[in-house]
Amino acid sequence: MNLLSPLPNADIAERVHVLLARPGLRIARIVSHGQASPPGFWYDQAEGEWVLLLAGAARLRFADEPETRLLAPGDWVDIAPHHRHRVDWTDPTGPSVWLAVFYLTDSAAGASDRLMILPNLGG
Amino acid sequence: MNLLSPLPNADIAERVHVLLARPGLRIARIVSHGQASPPGFWYDQAEGEWVLLLAGAARLRFADEPETRLLAPGDWVDIAPHHRHRVDWTDPTGPSVWLAVFYLTDSAAGASDRLMILPNLGG
Repeated sequence: MNLLSPLPNADIAERVHVLLARPGLRIARIVSHGQASPPGFWYDQAEGEWVLLLAGAARLRFADEPETRLLAPGDWVDIAPHHRHRVDWTDPTGPSVWLAVFYLTDSAAGASDRLMILPNLGG
Repeated sequence: MNLLSPLPNADIAERVHVLLARPGLRIARIVSHGQASPPGFWYDQAEGEWVLLLAGAARLRFADEPETRLLAPGDWVDIAPHHRHRVDWTDPTGPSVWLAVFYLTDSAAGASDRLMILPNLGG
């Protein structure tokens, strides 16, 4: 299975493809083509997100930083839970491909495990 | 921070750089340059490993498959815990760059959480 080809057409909207889903862990490929977060919108996620740009170009903005970060292929960022951020810009001239690893942190992971285990107790 | 440049020199030995370490999760970049697993050696890992080849070329062999799998940039494989495998070959003509996500599965993750939580109980 290949992350870079074929790529889905993301002209109309970002395309998200979950590659792996485990308790407390999700790996996804996201393909953007010029999309950005809506004006004034900030992601405020309960999960941590380790994100790598594989192709294209993008600008990431953190609420507590005055400047956007320009990302090139190979650039990665670890976004802590509730670190407010937005995608300010993605290259409109071609696809930008992200690899995102969403993970639950310590206490949240414990909660997730309990949710996983409970349904099996009566089994 | 960029995964692809600069690259460490891996002529003598593979170079492993842990990018993120959390309970039950470890993300690492591995740079190979012609290395392969020793003859007869098989990885038999307690963790799951989701691995993506970012650059170069490699051949992965699973103990229960007759043929090696040739990996090109963008190719990824999810290796279940204890799925015996080896790196049969990496491109000797240049660096091969891997992104590896090591993760604990359900029961192992639960055990890890307990290990994380226990030292805090007296606090």
